[in-house]
Amino acid sequence: MRVINSSEILQMEQRFRTTFINSISGFKSLQMVGSINSEGNTNLALFSSIFHVGANPPYLGMVVRPDGNEHETIQNIMFNNAYTLNNVISNRYKEAHQTSARYSAGDSEFAACGFTEEYIDGFAAPFVKESNVKIGLEFKEYLPFLLNKTKIVIGEIKHVLIDEDLIGKDGFVDLNRADSVSSSGLDAYYTTNPLTRLSYAKPGKQVEELNVYREHR
Amino acid sequence: MRVINSSEILQMEQRFRTTFINSISGFKSLQMVGSINSEGNTNLALFSSIFHVGANPPYLGMVVRPDGNEHETIQNIMFNNAYTLNNVISNRYKEAHQTSARYSAGDSEFAACGFTEEYIDGFAAPFVKESNVKIGLEFKEYLPFLLNKTKIVIGEIKHVLIDEDLIGKDGFVDLNRADSVSSSGLDAYYTTNPLTRLSYAKPGKQVEELNVYREHR
Repeated sequence: MRVINSSEILQMEQRFRTTFINSISGFKSLQMVGSINSEGNTNLALFSSIFHVGANPPYLGMVVRPDGNEHETIQNIMFNNAYTLNNVISNRYKEAHQTSARYSAGDSEFAACGFTEEYIDGFAAPFVKESNVKIGLEFKEYLPFLLNKTKIVIGEIKHVLIDEDLIGKDGFVDLNRADSVSSSGLDAYYTTNPLTRLSYAKPGKQVEELNVYREHR
Repeated sequence: MRVINSSEILQMEQRFRTTFINSISGFKSLQMVGSINSEGNTNLALFSSIFHVGANPPYLGMVVRPDGNEHETIQNIMFNNAYTLNNVISNRYKEAHQTSARYSAGDSEFAACGFTEEYIDGFAAPFVKESNVKIGLEFKEYLPFLLNKTKIVIGEIKHVLIDEDLIGKDGFVDLNRADSVSSSGLDAYYTTNPLTRLSYAKPGKQVEELNVYREHR
């Protein structure tokens, strides 16, 4: 076990450090974010820091960096208050990665990367037809950090488009069965193997494997 | 493909909705957070919303809910500005889940759940001996949401304790090789299968599988 301290991290070659720090914090919540601008041009971008904020009302957050490639997505979200999260399924992960290329504003990543736009009534932002767990959100809050230019966008879940057989009896959405991909660092992708679901933990009580998960498969 | 709208989500039975919303947003960045209070009592708690904030300086964020089980961890972080993130390896995921039980303040989850405290000079918070990718952080920022009681804690990475053979030539930390576990929802755990690492995406250029990943394995 090696101890790498702060001064060693700061002395790392820049790209080495970026890769090291980006890959150390764990597997990531990967989503393609769909949005549309005032001229009707669509945008699809890969985000890997999506997190749960609340279940009632249902809120999700995501980390954004407004000075980079993510500027268009953020502008679009601000413009019409709507955006979508679309899971990456394993037979499409290379196309999903390709959406992170810097296309010019008029070129939609949907067409350029081989994804199909899908719309529902009364909701402006495009979903990804090829995904099987899709979330339509209404923009709620934009939160800046003091430390650097990173911001957080929070939205309220307004629509969920999902294959019904992915939802378990207790509401659990089976992302492994959906063939959803996770990521780490900036460029590594993974499928998953379920271990199990575990019972609510209590002091002095052995955790149990939940049957509800087995029933489901 | 079924469309579930906002009014249907709000009418779901409460536990069903909590499980549904918690499991829909993707695989999670699972970490055990180690901390210590003013009396020297240690705490170990499971957090699943860890995210990258910056590489230079190296910052990580995590989502916390101060009115729940996470109150002690937050108090400890505020008290001595130090905390640790420790990966969950697959042969310990049940013990890691058990740390989410509500132990009384004097009972350390380290002892109660079968984990061993590990310290390095000049850093107050305990690491988990059984983990193989561990991060020591200095508390930097506490950020409230306007929408609900959720907050974000941001820390700067000061120490990394890691098996050296998990770090690739380009700095990439191989969490799959580390046998790190991911999670979804509140109680589901997964191991991973690597697909591949992909080259930096450019418009009009086919993405390539990175050799650096193969060399590493």
